[in-house]
Amino acid sequence: MSTTTTLFESVSQLMNKIKDIQATISLLGWDQEVNMPTGSAPARAEHISTLSSISHELITNDSAKSLFEDAKSHLDSYSGTEKRLLTLFIEEFEQNIVLPMQLIKDTAKARALGQTAWRQAYHDSDYSLFQPYLQRLLDLKIEAAEHIGYKEHRYDAMLDNYEKGATVTLLTPIFEELRQGTIELLQEVDSKKEYVNRDFLHRTFEPVKQLSFAKQMSERLGFDFNKGRIDLSTHPFCTSFSPIDVRITTRVSEDKFHSCFFGVIHETGHALYEQGVNQEIARTFAGGGSSLGIHESQSLFWENYVCRSEEYWMYAFPILKKEFPDQFYNVNLEQFFKAINKISTSLNRVESDEITYNLHIILRFEIEKGLFEGSIRTEDIPEIWNTKMNEYLSVVPENDKQGCLQDVHWSFGGFGYFPTYTLGKLYGAMFWNQINKDIPKTKDMIAQGNFTDILQWLRTNIHQYGRLKTPQEIVKDVTGRPLTATDFLEYAKNKVTKVYGA
Amino acid sequence: MSTTTTLFESVSQLMNKIKDIQATISLLGWDQEVNMPTGSAPARAEHISTLSSISHELITNDSAKSLFEDAKSHLDSYSGTEKRLLTLFIEEFEQNIVLPMQLIKDTAKARALGQTAWRQAYHDSDYSLFQPYLQRLLDLKIEAAEHIGYKEHRYDAMLDNYEKGATVTLLTPIFEELRQGTIELLQEVDSKKEYVNRDFLHRTFEPVKQLSFAKQMSERLGFDFNKGRIDLSTHPFCTSFSPIDVRITTRVSEDKFHSCFFGVIHETGHALYEQGVNQEIARTFAGGGSSLGIHESQSLFWENYVCRSEEYWMYAFPILKKEFPDQFYNVNLEQFFKAINKISTSLNRVESDEITYNLHIILRFEIEKGLFEGSIRTEDIPEIWNTKMNEYLSVVPENDKQGCLQDVHWSFGGFGYFPTYTLGKLYGAMFWNQINKDIPKTKDMIAQGNFTDILQWLRTNIHQYGRLKTPQEIVKDVTGRPLTATDFLEYAKNKVTKVYGA
Repeated sequence: MSTTTTLFESVSQLMNKIKDIQATISLLGWDQEVNMPTGSAPARAEHISTLSSISHELITNDSAKSLFEDAKSHLDSYSGTEKRLLTLFIEEFEQNIVLPMQLIKDTAKARALGQTAWRQAYHDSDYSLFQPYLQRLLDLKIEAAEHIGYKEHRYDAMLDNYEKGATVTLLTPIFEELRQGTIELLQEVDSKKEYVNRDFLHRTFEPVKQLSFAKQMSERLGFDFNKGRIDLSTHPFCTSFSPIDVRITTRVSEDKFHSCFFGVIHETGHALYEQGVNQEIARTFAGGGSSLGIHESQSLFWENYVCRSEEYWMYAFPILKKEFPDQFYNVNLEQFFKAINKISTSLNRVESDEITYNLHIILRFEIEKGLFEGSIRTEDIPEIWNTKMNEYLSVVPENDKQGCLQDVHWSFGGFGYFPTYTLGKLYGAMFWNQINKDIPKTKDMIAQGNFTDILQWLRTNIHQYGRLKTPQEIVKDVTGRPLTATDFLEYAKNKVTKVYGA
Repeated sequence: MSTTTTLFESVSQLMNKIKDIQATISLLGWDQEVNMPTGSAPARAEHISTLSSISHELITNDSAKSLFEDAKSHLDSYSGTEKRLLTLFIEEFEQNIVLPMQLIKDTAKARALGQTAWRQAYHDSDYSLFQPYLQRLLDLKIEAAEHIGYKEHRYDAMLDNYEKGATVTLLTPIFEELRQGTIELLQEVDSKKEYVNRDFLHRTFEPVKQLSFAKQMSERLGFDFNKGRIDLSTHPFCTSFSPIDVRITTRVSEDKFHSCFFGVIHETGHALYEQGVNQEIARTFAGGGSSLGIHESQSLFWENYVCRSEEYWMYAFPILKKEFPDQFYNVNLEQFFKAINKISTSLNRVESDEITYNLHIILRFEIEKGLFEGSIRTEDIPEIWNTKMNEYLSVVPENDKQGCLQDVHWSFGGFGYFPTYTLGKLYGAMFWNQINKDIPKTKDMIAQGNFTDILQWLRTNIHQYGRLKTPQEIVKDVTGRPLTATDFLEYAKNKVTKVYGA
């Protein structure tokens, strides 16, 4: 037994070391976005590159390899948390050695070139400038998929990278149901001919007051400012150096009240997840969120299910009106609720409402799937994009900038990333239904501005585990059901009825 | 020749790696003082400890040892910068392996205990609570000195650690001349019976405006805010992650104008040094200042020699009056100049003026020297302290808090650190005399607010070299003379005449 004890301790120490380095790299990244003077970029790139290579060396060197071999052969003598941590170590090791060094270098180069080409193509709104670089990235990722391996579909190797257990077979029927249901819902909205006014969200809101209100509301939900911060940056994000040091950022526009507020609440959802991970596993590979999809479910849980509800604004609207009396003097609760839930098809993914958003993702999922199975060529992306946009959302981009060049993800070869956004919505709806079963007074508590039990429920059922459970295990353990689109569609239907009438 | 080329490249790569880690540790430290939520301290301690141990491992492992042996045996086939960099690598390696691991661990423990005991003793104003811990630290440092080695005096091993080349033999006669000269100067000031009023420096100055004024003046001296920042922290400091990322901090008191302003200028002096290091050597062991003493000479050069001069305020006082019209409405340039140069003996080192300050340092130097040669026992420090305070400054502390417990340095075993403060003053005076010889219009340029040529002179003669030169080499190369107290005493005499009359 002493051998196996020593093995676990050695693996733990290695994980601690690597997690500390990764936390430090996160700080370097946070500082770069929040504080760093622009002229300092070259030095920062060197610091990050050096720490990344040290981290990579630690997980792939001879000593790690011998721990990996030990762990593989003794895994069955472990159970529970220890077994799961050893498994995560084994996976991390395999992930770091599975790709040949030449492929890693080629991909890094193709990413750098891809991002530059994408920026130029986006600027010129000319997809043809980007296409050869995207093709190169796709070829390299297909090669990577063959090294990584997959059971059924080559694209699975990409999906699994961002969302453990996600496959084409699992997602395709669910996304098809979601697509159909959403398109029908949009037809229903259209048929109501109800105009929702949201002009008052574009009145003038002093940035300092916006921030202070958002911060107050974030704290009320449970964000612990003794173990976290909020700052300004160009793009909002959440980063965690440890459950006791979690930082979020936001941006503020004077004439877009909803942008800063819901941005902060969204990042607060991510942050509450990170702050809730059990401190005992913080410095292991189980520290941090289970997957991108589960992470997104937590940000959306608070942003949409809680903070876009009527009940939430029964509590928060009086406070908001006190903070911004001039801006909302002629707006009532119902008008405000409708405004922040207005459904309107957009050409742009990030500007979409919570319901049409999924159609943007499904479109990208279908294209990526086609690229990896060879049924779609990179040359044909703009045409397919525009056709699908018309079919799903009844809008057609006038040019590539408005269309297939709008996202940065493909420029760094991030195939398989997009679906996690929609998975977050689906998980979120399932959790939302479950908490309302487990705690029938959930909505009453929200209306009273009391979020303690809700956060506690998330902590107990999801947050504390970090990556000790896979996404599908969490969904199963929390809801007793496998992944489904039904909960989301039901939620969406209810929302449409509330905003546009029965 | 190909062998030696490879050696230099390998050493360079190792230095780059270690410097990047050290820069990252500096960022972790900066963030801790400037941004970090208080509850995050335990995680931060782990991150710093992990990175420190990785850095230590890299400089002491077998691969470093073999480079060290190669470098030692091939050193003579190198010259110039390459030779100096290899020498710095050899020194760094030796410094990291010279102490037995047990002594390092014992010292770390004694430092932790020492700091806790000192805080308690300081709080209770009772030196006896601290004395046993100080004795333990002294014993360990004496043991360290024996490992490090020294030619004449055991205390030299401590001095050399903070200021390469500083020895008891070098410093003793210079410090004695300085002590005598300063005491005589104080008697002269006393005999003038001239009262200098500085009450107006304690009027109410809005913090935001103080900061903005100090920042403006810092930028005017040459601080590049595209490659640096200024923030608030409890204790002012300067830290550098690279010459293109240098950050200073300050504190602001509403009723102490001089504290924030001269604090910022002092740290600006440090920052200009760091920003001026040749980018080519930034990621080597020559990146950063030559020594603590030379660093201090740069902060004091700007703080005292430039920004406490009459000429500087001929330029800056009109700007200051515009910024703070109410506070200075009845103050003229002469009154202001005298106020910021008032000489008044203090019990406290950090509250001292630029002239009496050295007496505080010399007192500590004499006690430390005595402790290391065995002529002073730790038990006797308070008595010796008070006697010397009376003799040098004609003031006697009423208790240990006001006396020998006022500084934190001894609580972490920082023997040999204090003298670098006074060395900074002496170097600074020598550089000041030299620049006035090399650029006779120096004072005129200051009076016009034109600092370009002054900064260029410092860059050319001092900054660019980083640690490519030792402190004594810099002094010799810049002034053609060895270290002396004469320049400082002459400068002090002039200042006294200007403020208190001939």
